[in-house]
Amino acid sequence: MPHDAAAYSAPELDVSQWFNTGDTPTLAALRGQVVLLHAFQMLCPACVRLATPQAQQAHEQFGRQGLAVLGLHTVFEHHEAMQPVSLVAYIHENHLSFPIGVDRPDGQHGLPLTMRAYGMQGTPTLLLIDRQGRLRQHVFGHVPDLALGAAIGSLLAEALPST
Amino acid sequence: MPHDAAAYSAPELDVSQWFNTGDTPTLAALRGQVVLLHAFQMLCPACVRLATPQAQQAHEQFGRQGLAVLGLHTVFEHHEAMQPVSLVAYIHENHLSFPIGVDRPDGQHGLPLTMRAYGMQGTPTLLLIDRQGRLRQHVFGHVPDLALGAAIGSLLAEALPST
Amino acid sequence: MPHDAAAYSAPELDVSQWFNTGDTPTLAALRGQVVLLHAFQMLCPACVRLATPQAQQAHEQFGRQGLAVLGLHTVFEHHEAMQPVSLVAYIHENHLSFPIGVDRPDGQHGLPLTMRAYGMQGTPTLLLIDRQGRLRQHVFGHVPDLALGAAIGSLLAEALPST
Amino acid sequence: MPHDAAAYSAPELDVSQWFNTGDTPTLAALRGQVVLLHAFQMLCPACVRLATPQAQQAHEQFGRQGLAVLGLHTVFEHHEAMQPVSLVAYIHENHLSFPIGVDRPDGQHGLPLTMRAYGMQGTPTLLLIDRQGRLRQHVFGHVPDLALGAAIGSLLAEALPST
Repeated sequence: MPHDAAAYSAPELDVSQWFNTGDTPTLAALRGQVVLLHAFQMLCPACVRLATPQAQQAHEQFGRQGLAVLGLHTVFEHHEAMQPVSLVAYIHENHLSFPIGVDRPDGQHGLPLTMRAYGMQGTPTLLLIDRQGRLRQHVFGHVPDLALGAAIGSLLAEALPST
Repeated sequence: MPHDAAAYSAPELDVSQWFNTGDTPTLAALRGQVVLLHAFQMLCPACVRLATPQAQQAHEQFGRQGLAVLGLHTVFEHHEAMQPVSLVAYIHENHLSFPIGVDRPDGQHGLPLTMRAYGMQGTPTLLLIDRQGRLRQHVFGHVPDLALGAAIGSLLAEALPST
Repeated sequence: MPHDAAAYSAPELDVSQWFNTGDTPTLAALRGQVVLLHAFQMLCPACVRLATPQAQQAHEQFGRQGLAVLGLHTVFEHHEAMQPVSLVAYIHENHLSFPIGVDRPDGQHGLPLTMRAYGMQGTPTLLLIDRQGRLRQHVFGHVPDLALGAAIGSLLAEALPST
Repeated sequence: MPHDAAAYSAPELDVSQWFNTGDTPTLAALRGQVVLLHAFQMLCPACVRLATPQAQQAHEQFGRQGLAVLGLHTVFEHHEAMQPVSLVAYIHENHLSFPIGVDRPDGQHGLPLTMRAYGMQGTPTLLLIDRQGRLRQHVFGHVPDLALGAAIGSLLAEALPST
């Protein structure tokens, strides 16, 4: 299936530390699966109340059907307040079981590197990447369950690229 | 695409009266679309609070993408209380805009005929019928939005049968 | 305690039929208790979803502490659709256990008589009447639980009038 | 009004740092007002989702009617994760405007001192203290709005102690 891969290809993640996994997940290695990337900050209320539980739910429902859910802690404000030691407690208290990475800081308390590469506007941000590694959805703010479910169902139904 | 149509084919609807449409919808005529059938009673609290608004939302979001949402008023108890004159008011008050049919009464205050043909256990019941007219989901009780969305997205992604 | 009783006294209820009680409740007979009057229509979505469950909850929590919860079915539209036979089914399906009266119809499909006497604007309407029979709150639309709880707690704390 | 003050008197707060106030609030100084004490941890999901927004709502609705809402950050686990620098960000992100104190640490990563004095079992914990400084409610876990409203309304209705 021809398409302009360069134009839509999702940039690789740049992560300084992973939790909830012994691996170092990459989009390249997840090619063939649909990827839901949940970018959040642990002190963002809309993340805690809506987007993070939704990501966990998607992981539980579709994690064995070809969907890889990844969290990305994109700290772009209150940097001292959201260090990895706090993220560990957040993951524990919210019973999160999908892999969660720390978006690599720029070292100057600005936007972390993956957030910058994707041009994210804030948190929560939802990215959906198809089996071929193309970015298919990029939404800032909460996505209602019915719409997210439909997008997941549709992407999971797409055939793997023939080689 | 070969399959045993007889085994999975959704029985045709048996409706005594339609609202919100000038037509008389049939599953046969909707072949090629995905059909979401929302079976309800207007005095069933879980219908009013959850399933009926969800059906309306599915109609609004996916109605122009190949999903046909149909309501079916399956009165199997309190027959005097839920006559068509009350259903008209219910449709009006709940701002429902998808076609809604009255499941044909058996004339003896028992199960109406479509409900009986499908072996429905109560209300709300959700049926999903694929583009080829096959019954793919039959759920008694509320279906969470994320799961329903995924099922709709998946069925909409299926190709039309080649002729 | 002197006050202008005439100005604030709650008009007596005019009810054609009661359900969930063997009595015929009157505000006069309930003097000494706080009365929460929940005026509703069974086909009003905000009643079904919010106000009617809230009234039931208030009945369960404060019914033995001096609060008398009464429902009033104030049919002012879709009269044929909301006859007493349907109200009986509504009460049953929603598991309502407080006394519910049918506001007496005006016989011309206009506003029923109690609704008219109180100048209610629609449904749901909440009335709170104090131990002395004075109307203390009259709200059209949903009242949040925190505010309603505070109003109930405050009125229950008022002393009975000395005689 | 005679009563056994010793038996019910609420222990004074032991706070190492206050936010959202230029004062150092004490229960002694708040005598004459009803006090709602919301004990929480910023990484406790039930606090973030339910109890903290409820405390803010109570502050907004009843703060000028004699209710003093105080927050108490009772860190008894994940101490490194919930330092004051993170609490400041939490207060900012959740738009909290009532005074919030840090329960004084015991210096050994155990229960902080006010939490210990009250025998709190975890977070969220709600305390209600009457105008005379007596502890009237102590609840571990979420308190529904209707019940909390009634308790507040009732305590606000109590007369000030005569001197």
